[in-house]
Amino acid sequence: MTDYLNDYCMHDHTCGQLRASDVDSQVTLTGWVWHNRDHGGLIFVDLRDREGYTQVVIDPDCVSAEDFAVAEHLGREYVVEIVGKVRARAEGTVNPNMATGEIEVLATSVKVLNTSVTPPFSIEDGIETDETTRMKWRYMDLRRPEMFNAIKLRHTVAQAMRSALNDRGFIEVETPILANSTPEGARDYIVPSRPNPGKFYALPQSPQQFKQMLMCGGIERYYQIARCFRDEDLRADRQPEFTQVDIEMSFVQGEDVMDMMEGVMSEVLAAAGVEHEFPLQRMQYADAMEYYGCDRPDVRFDMKLVNLTEIVRGCGFGVFAKAVEAGGVVKAINAKGAGDWSRGDIDKLANIAAANGAKGMAWIAYTTDGAEKSPIIKFFDDETYAKMKEALNVEPGDLVLFAADTADVANAVLSALRLHMAEALNIPREGHALLWVVNFPMFRYDEEEKKYAAEHHPFTMVPPEEQYKIEEAPLECGSYSYDLVMDGFECGGGTIRIHTAELQRRILRVCGLTDEQIDEKFGHLIHALELGAPPHGGIALGLDRLVMLLAGKQSIRDVIAFPKTSSASDPMTGAPNEVTSRQLKEVALRTL
Amino acid sequence: MTDYLNDYCMHDHTCGQLRASDVDSQVTLTGWVWHNRDHGGLIFVDLRDREGYTQVVIDPDCVSAEDFAVAEHLGREYVVEIVGKVRARAEGTVNPNMATGEIEVLATSVKVLNTSVTPPFSIEDGIETDETTRMKWRYMDLRRPEMFNAIKLRHTVAQAMRSALNDRGFIEVETPILANSTPEGARDYIVPSRPNPGKFYALPQSPQQFKQMLMCGGIERYYQIARCFRDEDLRADRQPEFTQVDIEMSFVQGEDVMDMMEGVMSEVLAAAGVEHEFPLQRMQYADAMEYYGCDRPDVRFDMKLVNLTEIVRGCGFGVFAKAVEAGGVVKAINAKGAGDWSRGDIDKLANIAAANGAKGMAWIAYTTDGAEKSPIIKFFDDETYAKMKEALNVEPGDLVLFAADTADVANAVLSALRLHMAEALNIPREGHALLWVVNFPMFRYDEEEKKYAAEHHPFTMVPPEEQYKIEEAPLECGSYSYDLVMDGFECGGGTIRIHTAELQRRILRVCGLTDEQIDEKFGHLIHALELGAPPHGGIALGLDRLVMLLAGKQSIRDVIAFPKTSSASDPMTGAPNEVTSRQLKEVALRTL
Repeated sequence: MTDYLNDYCMHDHTCGQLRASDVDSQVTLTGWVWHNRDHGGLIFVDLRDREGYTQVVIDPDCVSAEDFAVAEHLGREYVVEIVGKVRARAEGTVNPNMATGEIEVLATSVKVLNTSVTPPFSIEDGIETDETTRMKWRYMDLRRPEMFNAIKLRHTVAQAMRSALNDRGFIEVETPILANSTPEGARDYIVPSRPNPGKFYALPQSPQQFKQMLMCGGIERYYQIARCFRDEDLRADRQPEFTQVDIEMSFVQGEDVMDMMEGVMSEVLAAAGVEHEFPLQRMQYADAMEYYGCDRPDVRFDMKLVNLTEIVRGCGFGVFAKAVEAGGVVKAINAKGAGDWSRGDIDKLANIAAANGAKGMAWIAYTTDGAEKSPIIKFFDDETYAKMKEALNVEPGDLVLFAADTADVANAVLSALRLHMAEALNIPREGHALLWVVNFPMFRYDEEEKKYAAEHHPFTMVPPEEQYKIEEAPLECGSYSYDLVMDGFECGGGTIRIHTAELQRRILRVCGLTDEQIDEKFGHLIHALELGAPPHGGIALGLDRLVMLLAGKQSIRDVIAFPKTSSASDPMTGAPNEVTSRQLKEVALRTL
Repeated sequence: MTDYLNDYCMHDHTCGQLRASDVDSQVTLTGWVWHNRDHGGLIFVDLRDREGYTQVVIDPDCVSAEDFAVAEHLGREYVVEIVGKVRARAEGTVNPNMATGEIEVLATSVKVLNTSVTPPFSIEDGIETDETTRMKWRYMDLRRPEMFNAIKLRHTVAQAMRSALNDRGFIEVETPILANSTPEGARDYIVPSRPNPGKFYALPQSPQQFKQMLMCGGIERYYQIARCFRDEDLRADRQPEFTQVDIEMSFVQGEDVMDMMEGVMSEVLAAAGVEHEFPLQRMQYADAMEYYGCDRPDVRFDMKLVNLTEIVRGCGFGVFAKAVEAGGVVKAINAKGAGDWSRGDIDKLANIAAANGAKGMAWIAYTTDGAEKSPIIKFFDDETYAKMKEALNVEPGDLVLFAADTADVANAVLSALRLHMAEALNIPREGHALLWVVNFPMFRYDEEEKKYAAEHHPFTMVPPEEQYKIEEAPLECGSYSYDLVMDGFECGGGTIRIHTAELQRRILRVCGLTDEQIDEKFGHLIHALELGAPPHGGIALGLDRLVMLLAGKQSIRDVIAFPKTSSASDPMTGAPNEVTSRQLKEVALRTL
């Protein structure tokens, strides 16, 4: 695994490579001084490179006086070249927790390749240095083994992805980064062009249009690990530039893309050392909303949403009855293990409910000693209450949390509470759980704009047997769509695309566009569909998030070498700058 | 090779796959109607996909009346699904020039998946359609086999490059595209940031700074197939965004990067089906200039520059004598085969000389019938003339072209004439010739700015034994630098980098920067070098140009799916647009 690093360079072994079988070998190592100490007249150095570290012993009897003097003045992060002989460690000093712990290198020569001033923080895993400092000296941060391992995991995942796609006939094609603004591109970055005063490129939010054009161009199977851009504020799980594994295939329909992707994902997870069963579960969108309250369920734990709407219809508790009467729902989760929570702790949960749109939060606590505590039990007749308890599978020690509202609000509230309670109750969520959520509705109704909009995007195929609903009953219209969900995050999503001009026009009309607007905004696509577009579909995976989850990190910034941070003063990872160059300033001015 | 395309899709064989051994198989094919014709009551269709084409026969006796009617109305570029049976072609109709030429498919079902309006041009290789039209319908252009093959070759080269680098311990790391403007970034694209009014990102001209930071970050071996940007006008061999294979390694010195790259290139060329001998020639920069007049010699043919300076010093021909006296040179090429050119044709060559800075062009023609024609022979004494002829290895049929000027101008003139004469004389330049040009001077003197500038870039390492010249004799100072040259094009270039702060400061001072300016403009790099930067070096290869040469194309636009063109109205390949969105316009306005 490390041999390949030993050609075309100054060392002949890495710092992670030597074993007992190498004893008596002459070796040359290069690396950074990680830890160094004097002990009994000898100098001990832990020499570190990206592959590991090796203990080097510098004995005044074995090196020249000059070299020993050099060794006496080594500091942390000095870059050195050591020539020496591998020897077995003395009994009792073998370190079984260290890959090279059976040996040490007795130096015969010590050479400083570069010095270092005092590092701004320790090059160790698990440091508590604030992120601003880490970002300012990002190159020092990257030397920490956990950072290197995350960057390497990203590499491993990307190569496995490519290899799996290459094996399936996909061709990697680069699409432009200097592209044109799209009709919906409100979050586009714009880029003035010097030779064209007043004109701009736009950075793509995804290569969606390009990949559909590649299918129209007969490429048949395309992929790209593509940089995408969205001019938005930073968040832990969102960067203004991000990387997506972008995939499109021709002559597919229905579940073909999902079937193909499962093979790819099984290879990618294996390369990342993650075991997972295949084929993956395919959960209807409607079921995800019904049982988890969201379209990206974390299925590593249960605590499903229970629908009580029919049980409480017309019941004595006005809040529930009115919600149902108004066309809403009453749903609940049973948080097992929280039945003894104090009223104060339970009341705090109402804040989470409120943050997700609830006007209040009803609850019933079943203490472990058999009591039932709640302000609302008294409103139910015995039969209703018994049915509720049965539906909720209530036992002592349970805490039931209710939401009575529109389906959208109730789902959002209980989905948030479900995740919060899992966290609060330390419910085990080891490992990873991948599944598909499929068959999203084609349209949603945009209350603000007072019109229908595509749920995924307006290029999504409607199953032939549902196409009659497009104009008649848009909200009942399904779609060939699929999201890949992992551990409660959306890791990717795709659809089968529309490949005929007439169907594309129908969908865009339902989205409120006139034929003139369609020609103006989507004329290019319509023309391509009229010139022999093949049936096609695809998917895009968020590489940053996938690697973040596989690396067990909390922030995308820990799996990108040079992420954006809002505060950093490091030009490598920082915020945008004022343009100081006079020439560039002129360009900026001339563009408007 | 094509099996992988038959899973997860509507067909079970590609259109390039069926052979005599498949006779009697039931198959489903999908593809585009390439050519179709009626013959003897049958309909013949050449069904095309990216893998090839297959002859389909639709016989009214073998398909339903409905399907036959469908087949009668097929048009070019219709997308169809054919179910049928493979049969051997009748004797005399076997097509040995076609991979599937032994068989045909007798259809039992014909299904139209999509129609097509009349294509704007023929989907054939070698069409003479103007580029504007091809770009406007780029998706149609990409269906032409030669375009698909170029795109696929690009994929093959990229994958071979990655595979060779992965095998050598390199890790692919993504560096930002939203970066900050660099001190020399006069050609940077600038990108306004919405949440930061008045502030801009810049698109990188190369990841140079980032890759050096990755070495400071202990990544040791990095690569990236990176998009780079330069805000310049279009040319056949230059796009405003381009792709570079960017490579950097630590603990290297001298020729390590070249040695490593030869292994990589041998794998890449093999994958592209190109034979080439390794190791590659390593030509000193000084020799390249002396014998070819340029730093990217096409060594597939000879016609080297001959230096006559010492022979003509003080000779009777005033133009030559004065040039030498002024510290210049007299050099010549011998274009064998042009000795019988007319005076008019020879005089036209003077335009090429003039375009490269010459004040005139002397010549001597040696006709095949033994005559010597020239306005200048009479000026030379016999001994000088004899020495010149000997140095130039003159024979009947030769045309000698002279340049007498500064070395720079003489080299530029003769380099251009050499390439022109090779073209004009049809000198064979088959195959490919790769070589290294090494040891560029560290500095050049910038006449305009009246100061020294780095020839490659100011981060380039000076060999230790030459470092004393840095301040004393900058123009005599060499560097660890290397360009990879192919067929007369620069395909890549790199250097060993400076890894200590003090040497970096010395170089920047010679380039005219004060210590304050160094800290202001390069403080980040200096700090990184002070914190244990390892010895490192790297190279960047131009993927676009490499693929262009390997594909035997004249324009980079023929090896990029969606290149920029100045004229195209296609939003996929076009020039920048006016920003029409009101929201984006506000961003643009707010930025200044």
